[in-house]
Amino acid sequence: MSATNHQVRLAARPSGLPVQSDWSFTEEPVPAPSAGELVVQIAYISIDPAMRGWMNAGASYIDAVEIGDVMRAGAVGRVTASEHPDFAVGDHVYGAFGVQEHALSNGQGVVKVDPGLAPLPTYLGALGMPGLTAYFGLLDVGKLAEGDTAVVSGAAGAVGSVAGQIARIKGARVVGIAGGAEKCRWIVEELGFDAAIDYKGEDVRRALREHVPEGVDVYFDNVGGEILDAVLARLARGARIVICGAVSQYNATGPVRGPSNYLALLVYRASMTGMVVFDYAARYGEATAALAGWLGEGRLISREHIVDGGISAFPDALLKLFSGENTGKLVLSLGVE
Amino acid sequence: MSATNHQVRLAARPSGLPVQSDWSFTEEPVPAPSAGELVVQIAYISIDPAMRGWMNAGASYIDAVEIGDVMRAGAVGRVTASEHPDFAVGDHVYGAFGVQEHALSNGQGVVKVDPGLAPLPTYLGALGMPGLTAYFGLLDVGKLAEGDTAVVSGAAGAVGSVAGQIARIKGARVVGIAGGAEKCRWIVEELGFDAAIDYKGEDVRRALREHVPEGVDVYFDNVGGEILDAVLARLARGARIVICGAVSQYNATGPVRGPSNYLALLVYRASMTGMVVFDYAARYGEATAALAGWLGEGRLISREHIVDGGISAFPDALLKLFSGENTGKLVLSLGVE
Repeated sequence: MSATNHQVRLAARPSGLPVQSDWSFTEEPVPAPSAGELVVQIAYISIDPAMRGWMNAGASYIDAVEIGDVMRAGAVGRVTASEHPDFAVGDHVYGAFGVQEHALSNGQGVVKVDPGLAPLPTYLGALGMPGLTAYFGLLDVGKLAEGDTAVVSGAAGAVGSVAGQIARIKGARVVGIAGGAEKCRWIVEELGFDAAIDYKGEDVRRALREHVPEGVDVYFDNVGGEILDAVLARLARGARIVICGAVSQYNATGPVRGPSNYLALLVYRASMTGMVVFDYAARYGEATAALAGWLGEGRLISREHIVDGGISAFPDALLKLFSGENTGKLVLSLGVE
Repeated sequence: MSATNHQVRLAARPSGLPVQSDWSFTEEPVPAPSAGELVVQIAYISIDPAMRGWMNAGASYIDAVEIGDVMRAGAVGRVTASEHPDFAVGDHVYGAFGVQEHALSNGQGVVKVDPGLAPLPTYLGALGMPGLTAYFGLLDVGKLAEGDTAVVSGAAGAVGSVAGQIARIKGARVVGIAGGAEKCRWIVEELGFDAAIDYKGEDVRRALREHVPEGVDVYFDNVGGEILDAVLARLARGARIVICGAVSQYNATGPVRGPSNYLALLVYRASMTGMVVFDYAARYGEATAALAGWLGEGRLISREHIVDGGISAFPDALLKLFSGENTGKLVLSLGVE
């Protein structure tokens, strides 16, 4: 264990895409736990689109990160010191440990993970918040049923790639929308999507007409913007739209682009429902068991896009999400296990 | 019975607000029924915001009216000739009889109404499609529960005025949004809404903060546009938005204005669902019985805004909906009972 804890803190609230001066880099001695506390050496940090929202002022579904605070992040690591009855040195754990090398925790929201069952980064992907979000969004909010046609945007991303695979496992036809030929190849050939639409290279409306002539029963939306409007124009009667995110809009400096075609909800008797995975905390066990089962059977593939370089690589890593550079779950490695 | 049937037909598809040249006026001999048919002398014609959508090309939730066709309209009247086993001369009936003085019908969708229970125009209002729309929209789609806070736009209109009263009857707090001081006075003092917001004279966002500090559980939306965005910013957790219409957008010549605040659905775990009353046809009896009961008890007030002048007054009557001139259900009288 190094004696110094390097940290990334929020220095300013960005307008549009975050820039380097929105961050400050600090170092502190690695803390020691008091009674009821533990210290975790962080191995992998989750890089999420939602981070952009946490950087804005004002209450949303979760408090904003305050200026000067260590940036909020989910992470996995190993317990290096513990005065907490539930955690022992050597345990591997997941928690909201922040963008730093070592975290002091009171154990709240910390869960043990088993590196024998899956590699640590998978607990930030298919067995972590993205997998849980895909599971509850698709099945509970989207009420996906066998025989449905599902469309997933951000289909090569952390949540979308799992959502599409769950749809297949549950007996739906699934069409993914992703950016670039390689991502489209990946979701069809390796993940088993029935078709892919490359929004960077194709007219999405025309491609939806071709690939979804029967209309969309469930749309799992991670992106918002023009793609949401295109799918609204192709709904089936009684369609369910799951609003999981809107990565196309998170860095907007003007007003968010609202879905101009929203009256399709009326025409098709459809619904559009927002979801936040934290609401399903009481059922994480059920979902994790299902996801781990599918992973073990080889029916669900988890892919992590791991960025090296440690804490100082965090600002650039975050930007990869908005430029669409990642395939699968974007994770920052701190070079330890 | 006059020997001539005056009719209004769609002559051109409007761009923006309909103009006089979008209509043609024709006359024909009053038809005689063949076996299985009946002829109705129309007394009152329903004037509805949805008519504007029916005038556009392209399939929506119902076929467009074709150029040259008699304009589609719900109406009530009296059977003047019948070769149909279910209808006798003298019966009062409701049906999609169109904008004309006499209609030939095969009986499909025709229902008898009782002028002893309520005046004929009420069968186009609280006991007609607007009342049914309010009932199923608020209770089935909006899942209104006792103790909820409901907001209704177009609150002095045919559907909104009934929706707000049903919300009160069901034990909710209800705030109406309407245009002008007189409409606001009417919905509060005569219909029993808890508060009213005059969107023509007040800042709707500020007024919502004042009147709905606890957030909106059910929003029954008839108007769309800026008001929908304002309500999205004030939702309670788990709110249900019922998309019944968007009268502010029906005459838009550019793209419809999508709700820029739609990500509030995610923040508040809320839903936005479209509805079309025809889907509830199998349950019209249940709803009509409830509505008639409340009318009889004096707990529900139906107000019809009756325009005289016969068939030729139809084009101007339709425009009143979009200028907001009507209070309650807009009905064209043909001067007969």
